Amino acid sequence: MKFVTYKIKHTLSPYRTGFIHQDEIIDLQQAYQKMLIHTEQIDMAYTVKTLLPSDPTDFLGLGKVAFDRAREAVTFVTNEQPTIESYARDQVILQSPVQNPSKIICIGTNYRDHVVEMKSEIPDYPVLFAKFANALIGPEAEIEKPNSTEQLDYEVELAVVIGKEAKEVEKTNALDYVAGYTIGNDVSARDLQKRTPQWLQGKTLDRSTPIGPCLVTTDELKDPSKLAITSRVNGEVRQVSNTSQLIFDVPYLISFISNLITLSPGDIILTGTPDGVGFAQKPPQFLQTGDIVTLEIEGIGVMENKVTNKK
Amino acid sequence: MKFVTYKIKHTLSPYRTGFIHQDEIIDLQQAYQKMLIHTEQIDMAYTVKTLLPSDPTDFLGLGKVAFDRAREAVTFVTNEQPTIESYARDQVILQSPVQNPSKIICIGTNYRDHVVEMKSEIPDYPVLFAKFANALIGPEAEIEKPNSTEQLDYEVELAVVIGKEAKEVEKTNALDYVAGYTIGNDVSARDLQKRTPQWLQGKTLDRSTPIGPCLVTTDELKDPSKLAITSRVNGEVRQVSNTSQLIFDVPYLISFISNLITLSPGDIILTGTPDGVGFAQKPPQFLQTGDIVTLEIEGIGVMENKVTNKK
Repeated sequence: MKFVTYKIKHTLSPYRTGFIHQDEIIDLQQAYQKMLIHTEQIDMAYTVKTLLPSDPTDFLGLGKVAFDRAREAVTFVTNEQPTIESYARDQVILQSPVQNPSKIICIGTNYRDHVVEMKSEIPDYPVLFAKFANALIGPEAEIEKPNSTEQLDYEVELAVVIGKEAKEVEKTNALDYVAGYTIGNDVSARDLQKRTPQWLQGKTLDRSTPIGPCLVTTDELKDPSKLAITSRVNGEVRQVSNTSQLIFDVPYLISFISNLITLSPGDIILTGTPDGVGFAQKPPQFLQTGDIVTLEIEGIGVMENKVTNKK
Repeated sequence: MKFVTYKIKHTLSPYRTGFIHQDEIIDLQQAYQKMLIHTEQIDMAYTVKTLLPSDPTDFLGLGKVAFDRAREAVTFVTNEQPTIESYARDQVILQSPVQNPSKIICIGTNYRDHVVEMKSEIPDYPVLFAKFANALIGPEAEIEKPNSTEQLDYEVELAVVIGKEAKEVEKTNALDYVAGYTIGNDVSARDLQKRTPQWLQGKTLDRSTPIGPCLVTTDELKDPSKLAITSRVNGEVRQVSNTSQLIFDVPYLISFISNLITLSPGDIILTGTPDGVGFAQKPPQFLQTGDIVTLEIEGIGVMENKVTNKK
């Protein structure tokens, strides 16, 4: 399943959880309600707002139950082809598939090739650093470039979204704790990142970090370890790699982090970026106002964001 | 005013906002309601739950209006000595005066003396790093020492709590954005902090970071730049300094951070720690199970926490 957080353009309605079906977007709660009526579960149809919340945070927070109900709804739509409203991509606005996570944990220097270009060393342990939710924007929003940086840079990353509380998890069953995968752009202001020994100030600028376009669940994307991953700027290919190049893979990261810190539903792990960032181009190529950054990960999709001056 | 987040022992009631009056705790909403009745504002007395929310997050989120009403209530109690329930410190449990902040921004190497002991250099810019809310505990809770660290360390710090959205604030009026001050123990697992170049994994262990005991508002604590600050472990003095030793003072930090990142009500800035941490003792003295850590900042109070094994 591919979940999205969407609203119909030119409306004031809140963002709702939808899913992608034949390249169009269908409201998840509405599909579930149709399925309940179709199968004559009328009492449940009346309480659908509680059974399958539309608010993306409530939906993710409900965990496995919500995902099971969502699967019923999606299967119903696929098999029964009911009459149901669907929206073309240009009829809706997409927001980040995860709203206001309590933690955004990023992994530094986690592709072998990127370690070389950043003149770092292969680390003995995953390098963890943080972003806060102020940095997040949706997959169609503009990346805001403030005047405080002259060296804004892109980093395509596989983003792991946690689906249930993870505490001291073993590698072998770590993927059970994943809600799904999406694409993150770990936009970094290199000048701010590097002017002190700790990177935070270059990593969590307001409205700098797009996440999206959709959350692909683990039943559809079973193996995150062999995904082609690329970035382009104004159509020019900059990063080309594969998640097979990760030094610490997704199960390792979930196990490692959850043995230090309890992970909660909706928490995001940005798993690191391959080589080809702007900083390492010769000469360096930083993001400028008007640039278009296009990220793609196999099995997830494409996310494209324009760079704009901070308002 | 000194606000606390409290509940009466042996009850299941939620935590409420109170204030300290003559060493006892009085419920803020109840005091405000008494004031409204006393001054014959009966209609307002009926809607007191909306006018002055008791939930600490809602209270802080309401901002200046809530603080103005709180001041009326506290003034009323002080001047009129009404009959009102008050609780001795041992009748209540105190929680952190700030619940679930969206950001905890810590400042590294910000006392001249601590910079020397950590063999660091005086930084050109404030060094910012992060904790997440999973790390926070109340002022009476036990600091949990997990098996993942053998080098747990204390750091007494002046904690600044933001009172209203701060974006590109000037130094000259930066203190207008402060709700108040409290004490933070930036507990750090030195082995985890230092095994990679980024400190996060040693800084945000679950239930490691006490905050409290109260939030002292800026009308009572007008000048945060000359406060004696100390820490003791099992009664032995370890850190003795004064906030006058801060390299980057509170107005500078708020201005600096808010020019990079928008600060929100309830956000916490931990302003850094003076010399005398366990890591720098000869030989090093790390926290052990059963240790009692006592922190004190002039004008705020004392916070004492026991170290326990992580459950």
